[in-house]
Amino acid sequence: MKGCKIVPGGVTAPQGYRASGIEARIKSPKRDMALIVSDVPASVAGMFTTNLIKGNHVKLCRKLIKAGKAQAVVINAGNANACNGPEGLQAAHRMSSLTAAELGIAKKLVFPCSTGTIGLPMPMDRIEAGIKMAAQALSRRGGPDAAKAIMTTDTVDKQVSFEFKVDGKPVRLGGMAKGAGMIEPNMATMLGFLTTDAAVDAKALQKCLSAAVVESFNRITIDGDQSCNDTVLIMANGLAGNKLLTTEHRDWPVFVKAVNQATKELAMKIVLDGEGATKFVTVVVRGAASDADARKATRAVANSLLVKTAWCGGDPNWGRIIDAVGYSGAKIKEELTEIRFDALPAVKNGRRAPGVELKDLEKVFARKSFSVVINLHLGKGTDTVYTCDCTEEYIKINADYMT
Amino acid sequence: MKGCKIVPGGVTAPQGYRASGIEARIKSPKRDMALIVSDVPASVAGMFTTNLIKGNHVKLCRKLIKAGKAQAVVINAGNANACNGPEGLQAAHRMSSLTAAELGIAKKLVFPCSTGTIGLPMPMDRIEAGIKMAAQALSRRGGPDAAKAIMTTDTVDKQVSFEFKVDGKPVRLGGMAKGAGMIEPNMATMLGFLTTDAAVDAKALQKCLSAAVVESFNRITIDGDQSCNDTVLIMANGLAGNKLLTTEHRDWPVFVKAVNQATKELAMKIVLDGEGATKFVTVVVRGAASDADARKATRAVANSLLVKTAWCGGDPNWGRIIDAVGYSGAKIKEELTEIRFDALPAVKNGRRAPGVELKDLEKVFARKSFSVVINLHLGKGTDTVYTCDCTEEYIKINADYMT
Repeated sequence: MKGCKIVPGGVTAPQGYRASGIEARIKSPKRDMALIVSDVPASVAGMFTTNLIKGNHVKLCRKLIKAGKAQAVVINAGNANACNGPEGLQAAHRMSSLTAAELGIAKKLVFPCSTGTIGLPMPMDRIEAGIKMAAQALSRRGGPDAAKAIMTTDTVDKQVSFEFKVDGKPVRLGGMAKGAGMIEPNMATMLGFLTTDAAVDAKALQKCLSAAVVESFNRITIDGDQSCNDTVLIMANGLAGNKLLTTEHRDWPVFVKAVNQATKELAMKIVLDGEGATKFVTVVVRGAASDADARKATRAVANSLLVKTAWCGGDPNWGRIIDAVGYSGAKIKEELTEIRFDALPAVKNGRRAPGVELKDLEKVFARKSFSVVINLHLGKGTDTVYTCDCTEEYIKINADYMT
Repeated sequence: MKGCKIVPGGVTAPQGYRASGIEARIKSPKRDMALIVSDVPASVAGMFTTNLIKGNHVKLCRKLIKAGKAQAVVINAGNANACNGPEGLQAAHRMSSLTAAELGIAKKLVFPCSTGTIGLPMPMDRIEAGIKMAAQALSRRGGPDAAKAIMTTDTVDKQVSFEFKVDGKPVRLGGMAKGAGMIEPNMATMLGFLTTDAAVDAKALQKCLSAAVVESFNRITIDGDQSCNDTVLIMANGLAGNKLLTTEHRDWPVFVKAVNQATKELAMKIVLDGEGATKFVTVVVRGAASDADARKATRAVANSLLVKTAWCGGDPNWGRIIDAVGYSGAKIKEELTEIRFDALPAVKNGRRAPGVELKDLEKVFARKSFSVVINLHLGKGTDTVYTCDCTEEYIKINADYMT
């Protein structure tokens, strides 16, 4: 992004944030608790799972966020704190109040988050000890530790941070995320946390985050399963000293672009780390009767097990792709349908594109990353999703685990 | 089924049917063409894929079936005759007319069916030679050969045949089907063919078949992909000599039961032969706010890759199941939700059922066949689907194939 330079630090790249990631032994022997704290109360915005079954932290965060203020986020991995009865909601509250006490701030400013196995009681003794450790370990350079502590089946941590200008002043945005298909082992939980030292109006921040999530985290799919714990939070503590960003601010588009860039990069990192994945695939539908139709078609293709296994095998099998569009619910006319693999035509007028050899299509599918572009030639609807192949390794990871 | 005895013969068990299965070398070296012929024109009914992309035989059969009469079905495996341009529809017509000429009957009485790879031109020379061979090989005992010739990745042929009474006269019903996940290698194509010597009114026959398919073939899912070629046909040639069966006939319920039994048995055989499958799982939802909600919930659970891989691993992971219901679109209240594995409670009031040990749940999941019964306690909606687990073998079968 123009005018945007990469800086190190993740969520602690912006001014006034400290973070830590420690071993609370919820799932030893890995870091499994993270804490992010702003020096001052920050504007906050959030997006949460639309699953009707919700983790207890989601239930609590949805209430807390109404006030638009946060100062800390405390996260545990290894236990989803979901479907574990009324004690689960009490546990979420207690995570918040214990952290608040440790930091000497108001409870309503502390957002708890959990990821891990569903249906287990929260190990509150370990959580309590973990919160103490995490508070003691807080550091201006703690971003990377925090990013590691939220990993579950992730094989790499996922961070971004960069600097841009608002009102001529340097402003920083940092972020971290986790998610790799299904997580340790129950869920495809996706967690994302962004921090910025920009001063941003809470309502504008929510608007910006909602739009950015639609274009990033909501465009990725690994296995089609939606977690009951998915959460994205952004804090803006204002220490950069800019004039409060609202949608009217001259530099608002700059800030929006930066948030979009950060969420998109984190989303891509999640797909690239998809459980067992060997290919990164961009599925684009153009020319659909409507955007809604395009969305149905991209999702059907990206979640089709037949399509994903063909990608795994490097098989440029367009039959499975057109078939998935056919049952997606999107309007399609066979004789108008075009499919390209990267720039190469595979299907024209609903049949094999003339003059293109199978071996050329195979070359595209041999790439580590390629796109499938479907033009339905029916209207102006478009949609894009980012996904990966489905491999034997995915099945192994998810079948071999025992609760 | 009471009053219904098993007889041998498959589609040639009823009077007046001959069949064959031969090697047309469309995909050597296996039998890949089948022919079923009635001695006299029969009432016919059919059900076809709802995929908007349709194989050419589906396009033709949907027209032919309006007249309600058929005398022969000719089927090829190895080529789906789909997405291959205007020549494909011509090929379907030609399969029909070549067979008609060979048998000396009207073209409009011959229904063609295809299953196999999408997007390839039909090898009409081999098809033509195959039709000749198939006609010469026709036999009163050819049912099993025909059942073998429609197999693709199926590991066993799938047949049923039994005898019951209508108007006090013995009547027979035979059937064969194919389908095993995705087929050779592009599609989850399901083909089913039923024959009976009962005399049945074509409209009543259609009504009966439509209802039976809803309760059988439409209740199974292996990978959630719907083929563009799915077809079920039933012929009733009247040679048993009963009074024409209509919905008013005293013995109508007996005939309906027999057709239901046949379609259900064939559907079960398809799931049991699911590609790479090691478990047969019945997913039942009760107490949903509506039947439509129940249907959304059963489908979400049965098609969840996370759930299917847990079954594969023998992991009684109910978190993945309740999560799938949560995103299915069905109404759910966490605190009311109950889940049983066979008779054993796993979840009560949205959390782990008290007093039930993990090892007991594991015993249920170690069975070759078990049920997952979800009670949402919200209303009277119910639904049932039959499915299987998803294994590394499934991925291997579908990834290793090269177009």
